[in-house]
Amino acid sequence: MPPKTKLPGEFELIERLVKGLRMTRRTLLGPGDDCAILAPSKRPQLFTIDSMLEDVHFRVAWGSPEKLGAKALTVNLSDIAAMGGQPTACVINLAVREGLDARFFDRLYAGIRATAERHDTDVVGGNVTRADRLAITIALLGEASRGVTRRDLARAGDDIFVTGTVGDSSAGLAILMGKLKVSGAARKFLLERHLNPTARIAAGLALAKIDPTPAAIDISDGLLQDLGHILEGSRVGAEIDARAIPVSPEYRAAMGNDLSLALGGGEDYELLFCARAGGSEQKLSRTLGVPVHRIGSIIKGRRTIIRDADRALTPHLRGWDQLRASA
Amino acid sequence: MPPKTKLPGEFELIERLVKGLRMTRRTLLGPGDDCAILAPSKRPQLFTIDSMLEDVHFRVAWGSPEKLGAKALTVNLSDIAAMGGQPTACVINLAVREGLDARFFDRLYAGIRATAERHDTDVVGGNVTRADRLAITIALLGEASRGVTRRDLARAGDDIFVTGTVGDSSAGLAILMGKLKVSGAARKFLLERHLNPTARIAAGLALAKIDPTPAAIDISDGLLQDLGHILEGSRVGAEIDARAIPVSPEYRAAMGNDLSLALGGGEDYELLFCARAGGSEQKLSRTLGVPVHRIGSIIKGRRTIIRDADRALTPHLRGWDQLRASA
Repeated sequence: MPPKTKLPGEFELIERLVKGLRMTRRTLLGPGDDCAILAPSKRPQLFTIDSMLEDVHFRVAWGSPEKLGAKALTVNLSDIAAMGGQPTACVINLAVREGLDARFFDRLYAGIRATAERHDTDVVGGNVTRADRLAITIALLGEASRGVTRRDLARAGDDIFVTGTVGDSSAGLAILMGKLKVSGAARKFLLERHLNPTARIAAGLALAKIDPTPAAIDISDGLLQDLGHILEGSRVGAEIDARAIPVSPEYRAAMGNDLSLALGGGEDYELLFCARAGGSEQKLSRTLGVPVHRIGSIIKGRRTIIRDADRALTPHLRGWDQLRASA
Repeated sequence: MPPKTKLPGEFELIERLVKGLRMTRRTLLGPGDDCAILAPSKRPQLFTIDSMLEDVHFRVAWGSPEKLGAKALTVNLSDIAAMGGQPTACVINLAVREGLDARFFDRLYAGIRATAERHDTDVVGGNVTRADRLAITIALLGEASRGVTRRDLARAGDDIFVTGTVGDSSAGLAILMGKLKVSGAARKFLLERHLNPTARIAAGLALAKIDPTPAAIDISDGLLQDLGHILEGSRVGAEIDARAIPVSPEYRAAMGNDLSLALGGGEDYELLFCARAGGSEQKLSRTLGVPVHRIGSIIKGRRTIIRDADRALTPHLRGWDQLRASA
């Protein structure tokens, strides 16, 4: 095997991770001992874990190592955002395989580090093990805000909002899988939305300041499925206006009027939230620092009604029913 | 595929994990939302992550699902024990494959739950993903004691001690791999030590109360390699008396005078610690609640000297040199 594809040793991989780490005062001891040590937390703490597996969630050839590292942390940051918290510290478990060289891991770590620093989050520990497939598992701690945007806070009469646009990420995935043909700037945009998503930390923190505290969730499994988690947690139903679902011009260029990926596709990492009726899209967009659209309202009972003038939408809803049935 | 080997859905797997979970007051919100919520910690917090991968760290056929679950948590608990802390809460990432049924996961979870309860630790969240191989990755939080038994606290003149016996686990592994033939009670004991190790939480907590705070590490990579981490962290050397290395009668029955597995084999999850000279084995054993043996002392400089009357030991030390060279 040529030297440049030689898999570095486990200790070398951990040393490379540690190299260049910057930590805040909340980290009393970083990587290098049996555990990291964090300063006592003043606020209740959020705790989550998520994993990205090669050939399940990504392929190495799809994007850069930096973006892969960034996304592995972003999927966790998004869980903190969905609770309205501030991420603080993470530990990383890396399963590594042959065929990846030191340069690959330096770039992967650089992506993790840059994303961690952007969100004032410390990388405090790591563990490396050999495997057949690359897997990046990250456990993340955060500090809860005074308001915690839990899934069980939706009430009948609430308006339902989403940040940004939905469906871009799964359209990007469809392009990568060879199932959707798109060219030019739209292709570039949709791929970027899949490979390099953003966790809505600032929006989540702003949401947590609203009184009464909204229910919120991040859109990781798909808008309708994630809405379903809120409806289940809050024991309510929803009425959704399909025409109000915010999709990007690039999604429209790729998918036309087909909303199946916007409703059923995952990994957008936007926030869906339910707030007391009366908040304007414009005012909420300013407060959250990201475009916000109202897509419907919470109703009594456990039904979900999707209103649409366009009959062509109906078939996609069957796809959604199947998703819900498996949830 | 017959129904009994049908892999349960991801949501079902999380629901099965949640079922029967008992949590303490420190957990404000358990599994079911984007993050768990923990009460603020009064003391500095320990944070660690570790993973067990099928065909790398274990084979499903080797032992029971309960023991596999217990060990996946124990390897993390042992990191908290090595710092002298009290484990508090964990999150679990499970990569699951076809061919494992709901009963398997119920038993795996039962093993995790029983071990968590034994050590007053809450299981507060989980994530499940599909894969080719079973993988259990656990991130664990703990509360630091007033003294933290870090790796950099060893001083020249300290005595070096280990809890319990060493080499049993890797002898058990050698049996499972067909590389070592042992029968009867010795076989049973060595297999149990590999498949069902104990984290020395109580011993670690007792160590952390000793003044001055001892240096400590858990023996996961092998006695000499883990001692090497302390020597490196503390910038000191060691003189080890090979005849003082505590091995079990069962190890002796299987390996005779060969100490290679006792010195180089990992996964014992005993504690190795360095304390100011003068402490007796008997008194320390009482204090720590587990048999403790003195195996040598810390010296100035960076050499490691292993003294042994039996020349037959020398070849095994070469194996150790290779281990150290790769570290």
